[in-house]
Parts: sequence; C-alpha cells; structure tokens
Amino acid sequence: MLAEIITIGDEILIGQIVDTNSAWLGEKLNAAGIRIHQITSISDSAEHITQAVNEALSRADIVLCTGGLGPTKDDITKHTLARMFGMRLVRNEEVFEQVKRMTAQRHIDFNELNQGQADVPEGCTVLPNRCGTAPGMWFDRDGKVLVSMPGVPFEMKTLVEEQVLPRLYEHFQFRAIVHKTAITFGLAESILAATIADWENALPDYLHLAYLPNANNIRLRLSAYDVDREKAAAEIDRQFALLDRVIPYRIIGYGDATLESAVGELLRRNGESVAVAESCTGGNIAHRFTLQAGASEYFMGGVVAYSNDVKCALLGVDPEALAREGAVSQTVAEQMAEGVRKATGATYGISTTGIAGPGGGTPEKPVGTVWMAVSGPQGTVSHKMQFESLRSQNIERASSHAINLLRLRLCGAPDDGLWTIKY
Amino acid sequence: MLAEIITIGDEILIGQIVDTNSAWLGEKLNAAGIRIHQITSISDSAEHITQAVNEALSRADIVLCTGGLGPTKDDITKHTLARMFGMRLVRNEEVFEQVKRMTAQRHIDFNELNQGQADVPEGCTVLPNRCGTAPGMWFDRDGKVLVSMPGVPFEMKTLVEEQVLPRLYEHFQFRAIVHKTAITFGLAESILAATIADWENALPDYLHLAYLPNANNIRLRLSAYDVDREKAAAEIDRQFALLDRVIPYRIIGYGDATLESAVGELLRRNGESVAVAESCTGGNIAHRFTLQAGASEYFMGGVVAYSNDVKCALLGVDPEALAREGAVSQTVAEQMAEGVRKATGATYGISTTGIAGPGGGTPEKPVGTVWMAVSGPQGTVSHKMQFESLRSQNIERASSHAINLLRLRLCGAPDDGLWTIKY
Repeated sequence: MLAEIITIGDEILIGQIVDTNSAWLGEKLNAAGIRIHQITSISDSAEHITQAVNEALSRADIVLCTGGLGPTKDDITKHTLARMFGMRLVRNEEVFEQVKRMTAQRHIDFNELNQGQADVPEGCTVLPNRCGTAPGMWFDRDGKVLVSMPGVPFEMKTLVEEQVLPRLYEHFQFRAIVHKTAITFGLAESILAATIADWENALPDYLHLAYLPNANNIRLRLSAYDVDREKAAAEIDRQFALLDRVIPYRIIGYGDATLESAVGELLRRNGESVAVAESCTGGNIAHRFTLQAGASEYFMGGVVAYSNDVKCALLGVDPEALAREGAVSQTVAEQMAEGVRKATGATYGISTTGIAGPGGGTPEKPVGTVWMAVSGPQGTVSHKMQFESLRSQNIERASSHAINLLRLRLCGAPDDGLWTIKY
Repeated sequence: MLAEIITIGDEILIGQIVDTNSAWLGEKLNAAGIRIHQITSISDSAEHITQAVNEALSRADIVLCTGGLGPTKDDITKHTLARMFGMRLVRNEEVFEQVKRMTAQRHIDFNELNQGQADVPEGCTVLPNRCGTAPGMWFDRDGKVLVSMPGVPFEMKTLVEEQVLPRLYEHFQFRAIVHKTAITFGLAESILAATIADWENALPDYLHLAYLPNANNIRLRLSAYDVDREKAAAEIDRQFALLDRVIPYRIIGYGDATLESAVGELLRRNGESVAVAESCTGGNIAHRFTLQAGASEYFMGGVVAYSNDVKCALLGVDPEALAREGAVSQTVAEQMAEGVRKATGATYGISTTGIAGPGGGTPEKPVGTVWMAVSGPQGTVSHKMQFESLRSQNIERASSHAINLLRLRLCGAPDDGLWTIKY
C-alpha cells in the first residue's frame, strides 16, 4: 500500500515554518503498514496543485494533502480540487454551525470569508474538524483515496487519528494492525542491535521490528499486520517482557514515555519527591520535569547554581572543597545533590556540574566533562561522563543521563557497569 | 530565478527525522532572491532519484539535493547522478586525504567503504566538506545547476554558506544582494502591520519587506537586489532606525538576536548580572539564558520555586502573604524577585508565578494567569498576563515576557502601556 503526502503553502517553501506534519504523518502511516513513496511541498497555485495531485494519484493508492484551506483568498486548495473533480461547492450545514460557534468563541467576525469555510465540494465526504474552521475532505477516485486537511498541526493530527486512519483501515480492509513501541535509553544503536540480535532473530515471522532513533532514545517498535488483534497484542507484550530481561533497566517505558515521565510515575507511585541542583544543565532538568502536566505532585523545584557563590550560599557546598577540587568535581556534585535535598525537603536530589562549552575546557577537564549525582534516603551516588558535542547537545544529554541516574535508583538497578552508559 | 530542493532518504519518508534542512535552505535562497518552486522528499532508489532530478531540472534553474551520500550501500545518490550524466567515478586526492584524516580522528577504520567517499563523478566540481566525509558536488547542465550535498544539517549548512551560495551568486551574476532582519517582540502581526503601514509605504521601491513570524517573534527582513551594496546597506540601516522610532523598544536586535541574547549583551556591557526565581516557568528562563555560550558572565543562577515551601525557604516569601493572596499573586511575584536578588547578590531578579495548566485554574485565576516581576537597584515592577494556550506554550510565552520585562527596564523604557503587551 503506497501513499504520498502533499503539503500546500508558500510558508513552507520560503522557510518560514518547518514541515513537521509530514514526519508525523510518515510515522503514523508507516506504523499502519502504509509506505510513503514521496512527500511534495508546493505553493498555493492552482496549476501546481492540480499537477502535483494528478501525479501523486498516478503513483499511489492514498494521497494526503495538508494546507491551503484558510478563509483568505490565497488559500485555494478546496476550489482547485472541486474544479479538478468537476464538483460544485455547496454549503454544509454542520460545518456552518461549527464555524459560527468557533468565530463567536474567539470573538471573530462571522463574515462572508468565514462563512465560506462551510462550502465543500458536492460529493466529497466531509470530515468535521472540531478544532478549527476548515473541515477535512475525503475524495474517492477509482479505488484510490485523496484526503485534504488543514495544515495547522493539531487540527490535522486530530482529524487523522479520529477519522482518517479509521476510515483508511476500513476502506482498504486491513484486518488488524497492532503495534507497540518500547523506549530504550543508554545503549547506542549499534550496541543495542548486537545485544538483542538473538531476541530479534527468534521473533515470530509475523512480527516486524523497527528501530526508531531520536535525539534522546532508541525506540523499538513491534508491528503485526493482518492478524488476530488480541493474540498479536499478547505476543508483543510477551516479546517485550523477554526483551526487558535481555537489556535489564534499559527500557524506560512504552508509547510516548520519556525519562522524566518514567521518573515522575515512579515517584508518584511511592509518594516521593525530587529537587534539582543544576550547574551546567542550567535549569533544563527542571524545565523537562515541569513540562509535564501534574509535575507539582512530585517535583519540588530546586536551585540553578550557575555561579560558585550560589553553589555555596544556597546549596551549602563547602567553599574550601570547591576551591581545592574545582566546581566540576565529584565532591561538589555530591554536596550539591545533598544540599538541595536538605534545602527543599525532597526525597531525592539530582545534581549536575560540568563544562558545557564551547569555552572553559582544560586538558584535565575538557569541554563535555560532567559530574552528576543523586542523593536519597539510601545515600548518594555520583558518576562522571564525557560528552563531546555542541553546547546545546551537551546540556541535553547531561540532563538525560542525570534523570536516568535517579530512574535507575528508583528501579532498584544494581550500581555496576550499567550506570555508566555505553556508546 | 527558480530553485527546487530534493531530499533523498527513507528516514524522512518514514518520519524518523523531521526535514529541517529544507526550511533552512528555503529561507537562505529566498533571502538571496531565489524562489523555491517545489520541495520533494524521495527514497534511496535509483529510479526515483533519476525521475525526480530530471523533473526538477525541467522546471527550475537550480536544483539542490541533500542526502544519500553516506559510505554504506543504501546510499546511492552519487552513483545515480554519475550514471544519469554519463560520468565515471574517479578518485579525488584532496577528498581522499580529508577522509583519511577524519576517520583517524574519530578512530574509525579507513576501509574500502570510507575510501569510496573520495570517488566523485568525473567532470563535476568538487566542493570539499571540512565537516564530514562526503564532499558536495556541483554539476553544470545546459546553463542550469545541480548541487548534491550531504544530509547532515551542519555539513550541508557549512557547504551552502561557504561555497554554494557564493558560487550561485557568481554563476548567475547577481550584482548584489543585501538584507538585514530586525527582530521584534510584543506586537502581534496584524497590529504590527497596521502600526508600521506608513513606514512600509514610504520605503524606496528597491527595498523589499518580508514578515517572518516564528514562535517567539515577528522578524522583519529588508532586502535589496541588484543594487549598489554599500548604498543599499546604508539605506536599510537608515530605514530600521526610522522604524525603531515608530515602534520604540519593540526591536530587540538584528540577525539572530533573541530576548535572552539582547538582555545578556546589555548586562555584559554594564557589568551587571541577573538571577531567576521561577515557579510556573519551571527553569525554562534559566535554561534559555544558559543555552547561550558565555552566560556565566552575567547569569548567576537562581531558584526553581515550584512548591510553596521552596518559595518561602529559599526565597524568603512571607508565608502569611502567600496564604492570604495565593501563590499566583502580585505580592508573591515581587517577593520572589526581591528574594532571589538578595539570595544571590545579582543586580536583577526575574520572577514568574502562574498557572501553566491544564489543571489548577479557578474562575478568578484561570489557566494561563501569570504574574511576573523584575527587581533591581531602582525597585521592583510587576505585571500580570493572561495566556490561553497549551501548557508548553504558556511556559514559553511567560518566559519570553518575563525576560522582556527586564530588557525593557535595561533599555530605560517608560513604564506605561508599552510593558503590557498588545495581542
């Protein structure tokens, strides 16, 4: 099953926005067993839209278009598709009422342009958009399917998940698609692949494994197509349980789990809390925890101890130890973690101190050297890591590893080589 | 002048990575007066590459390809282009030495695959890549230009800025292209457009204005093509100086300036410093300051006071005032800013306290209510803002406005309606 994506709008071509819709669609369709053959970004031009849509329909079974559905004159996708397919525009009452409600809510004039959002090509299937004024439109063409959707990411995503994907499943009669993604942290892709090779080779034929690396994790997705849904789901769970024994403590969760959500869940379950003492990560660990809704249940806050004065004044770091061993040292990292735990009363303290770069490195402590520690009821553990990338990447990776240090402790992982991450 | 971009690689089609290269290229070319006609993402397939390149060359003067130049077997862009253009592959000694050096530095085996990176189509112009092993390749075809570049963003960007753009300027004999971008903060696009309409209408004909909104700012770019470079640059500077009088204190800087870099520069110049006391922004302001290299010159750190206990214990917020007026109140915001200034000895303290959502709102203080304050040698100012978006956006926008509050004070802006941002 082949699909193509067409994104319509000058703002992508002039680089005003990054096209994140296509990657999201690519992953969703790929998980459903549909292969994306091509992604094409074009301008708001009738000729260009007509040509791109015709070409895509000649190559693929499914064509998903996003963008060009706004109320203003420069948005012409709907009119162009209607003309291509020889349909006239007719008012859709359901959409009309929805647009009326939305404009009232947002205190926007319900003028002719906005009312025009309710006009749709006669004969297409209207997919109501509960997040915006432009509905999705589904066209059947000789067994193939063309869907036109708004380009606003959350409107498009809601339409795809609630309406487009279920309709595609039905239309093309996929018997069942089951997939689940395990999120791993701490093993580079090549090492992970070598470590789990036996497990991978023993997977039943009908289960497909995909490696999906991103900035922070390697995600492993197991998919099954055209099989009994319940049986396959049970088999996937069984296989991931086996995998967890092959790479203990490396799977941080499933689906959209992150290191911070995994830690948050463990703390919440135990009625425990955490506070942070950040030097080189400069607030990023706190930021990552607090991006999660409900973080106040387990995240107390902490100290961004960027200057040495703040390390001593607010975290009780010993000025003599700091002078003797330097800010980037095991002693200071441990005193920071212990200090923030004492200052806030949190169950656990996480600390980081290092050299994010590009300046500040020395032969003994080059750029990318980071000490991190976790202090808790059972004492304090610390680790040194050496990163070697750009400032922003060093900050991001040091944050991940520091959060993982607490995760490993909360999981009861043994403090052996595991904690030192292999790349 | 028309250009097309072709990105080659399965990882984009399956949604494993977001294509940020195309947006970057789009903005660069657009600024150079070259219009992007289409962006096409295709798989690592010889047939698909051949077809896409031929089609793009039939429509555009310039075709820029990225990706598919790695040493492994699935990367076939170079071989496909050589076959298309009837060229054989020959070893390039300069590239050979560069790859040899790079693999040695990274402790990678200089094997046959890596040596193959030095084979290039005979007759193309090799653009040496000082950041990686795959060189850029420039092909002249009947007055048109095709350039093949690696897909790794920083390798591609370095090649484009140092070699591809200067060559395009020369090849197509642009007389001169001058542009400069002013970064504004605090006026929504529609209000900004209305406010600067007279200034915009009075611009000389040869200056082109582009609105480039992004998540945090509206950027205004002035460009001049085919004119005397020095004269145009002087005129652009004169026009932006005029604009600065039309929207005083709204231009935060030029080029890649951000709120935090503007504040950093002002503090550095005055030998002053800042510390933060963050509740609802949860460390994001600190994170944004510390993402900048050299932040330690003016950023001292601060307190992430997520829980009320931390607000009182580390920032000296009065528990009675907190109980009486609530954590999200003017009094608590001001006490937090004053408290962190005292605790750290920084010249200025910035604070935020609010309800990021999705939970925690009340009829009096709905989700999105944020109090922010700046404390300094001249006293403390505070403002209340009401956002109404997703948690992550509320955090980002509250951070921006709090940093801007300090920027306005450092610029000596009068504390009138200006500080309350108009949307």
